[in-house]
Amino acid sequence: MGLIGGSIALAARQIWPASLVIGVDNKDVLETAMRLHAIDVAADDPVVLAEVDLVILAAPVRQNIELLGELDEHVRQPAVVTDTGSTKRSVIDAARALPSKFTFIGGHPLGGGAKGGLENARPDLFKGRPWLLTPTDKSGDGFEKLSAFVKALGAVPRALDAATHDRVLAYLSHLPQLTASALMQVVGDAVGHDGLALAGRGLADTTRLASSPPEIWRDIAATNADEIGPALDVLIALLQDLRRDLPKGDRLAEVFSGAELWRRALSV
Amino acid sequence: MGLIGGSIALAARQIWPASLVIGVDNKDVLETAMRLHAIDVAADDPVVLAEVDLVILAAPVRQNIELLGELDEHVRQPAVVTDTGSTKRSVIDAARALPSKFTFIGGHPLGGGAKGGLENARPDLFKGRPWLLTPTDKSGDGFEKLSAFVKALGAVPRALDAATHDRVLAYLSHLPQLTASALMQVVGDAVGHDGLALAGRGLADTTRLASSPPEIWRDIAATNADEIGPALDVLIALLQDLRRDLPKGDRLAEVFSGAELWRRALSV
Repeated sequence: MGLIGGSIALAARQIWPASLVIGVDNKDVLETAMRLHAIDVAADDPVVLAEVDLVILAAPVRQNIELLGELDEHVRQPAVVTDTGSTKRSVIDAARALPSKFTFIGGHPLGGGAKGGLENARPDLFKGRPWLLTPTDKSGDGFEKLSAFVKALGAVPRALDAATHDRVLAYLSHLPQLTASALMQVVGDAVGHDGLALAGRGLADTTRLASSPPEIWRDIAATNADEIGPALDVLIALLQDLRRDLPKGDRLAEVFSGAELWRRALSV
Repeated sequence: MGLIGGSIALAARQIWPASLVIGVDNKDVLETAMRLHAIDVAADDPVVLAEVDLVILAAPVRQNIELLGELDEHVRQPAVVTDTGSTKRSVIDAARALPSKFTFIGGHPLGGGAKGGLENARPDLFKGRPWLLTPTDKSGDGFEKLSAFVKALGAVPRALDAATHDRVLAYLSHLPQLTASALMQVVGDAVGHDGLALAGRGLADTTRLASSPPEIWRDIAATNADEIGPALDVLIALLQDLRRDLPKGDRLAEVFSGAELWRRALSV
């Protein structure tokens, strides 16, 4: 129950007041969730999960994979199961071992850069934002159900396969994240607090992602290393290119012009 | 007369209505400057400069250096001369050749991430932002005069030597700029317009600088290559480190934690 789990819960309680929203987390977090009216029932004991219709795993990727292994113990009836993790192949692989009463469809809401944590959760977090879904041949009508669910939350569902998801997100999200953190570390170490006092909005924007929590990103890197690695290689090669060309600046002019064009394609 | 020159002119006309603000640029730009009431006199012919007290060079760095060589032809009386370029050593070197009637002090207003171009100029652009000045032993009372001038524009003058300026700015500004442009180019080439349609605020922020104009940056790279090069090397080495460590994530956790701390030191 962080930013994503909390926001889904808040929205679900507003949209379906007759439904029961059960939060699973440790006691402290569940107390906060109750205080924020994000959940109807705080399940520090997962026994309350016996009759749920929809399970949403919103922990870091590798924790979601562990939780998949515990589902059968607690959920007694057929249910749609989804997750909200930033990589999809590993969780889909793990979901193949689920008993047939479960229909698993991977999910990835693109939240749009809000600050993390349950305290920042809000019911309109997903409004107008893509929510990627990765149905497989075993998804049955689960995909339609889940699409309807995320649409009701205000999101725009989009189906794509897990391999494409992980490749595209390596570039759209994982590479920028690693670059922002590395850049912030290098700049901070080089100029210290005195130097940073002179920094403007340029550095601040370029490194905004560097406040992201390490524990989530360790899982993302581990479960998408084979896609992030080659993406990093391409960036490193281009930076080496620019470095060699610095005094002349021909390659720089080329890259800046190309980048300016691509940047215009970003609506945000 | 772009964003910086235009904003200085707009502010100067407001603050010192009795002073004459003369704009030097090509005809089209000067017409816009007149229309925006940024200048009193449009000097497509620099002959009107004979009696100026203060010369502000606000073109790209290497063009400022060329303009320095032409000053003596046009300015007939003692004047303080400054520039607004993003690197300082090369222009200061060039200014040593000025006749003694000129007092040169390098300047660099940190504008704070506004969009470039005269049409985006505004008199309060420098309000509360640092304006770096690089006085030398030949600056005399020029430094006090120029400090008073930039203070009147709302900026906070700060003296530092040119070598320190160029080293610190290589990290605070030039490295983030090159990284943002390279990242945007790599991501755009990899995922295309369809992929970019899924991008969120994370990529958008990290690459916002990638809309910066190539011509300005070519000059910056050329005149600060010896500082930007080593800064790029440190970043490249760290990205290579992260790449090797991806599946394990120990180095990633370390870098993310360090970066998160430095990021908090950025007030913006």
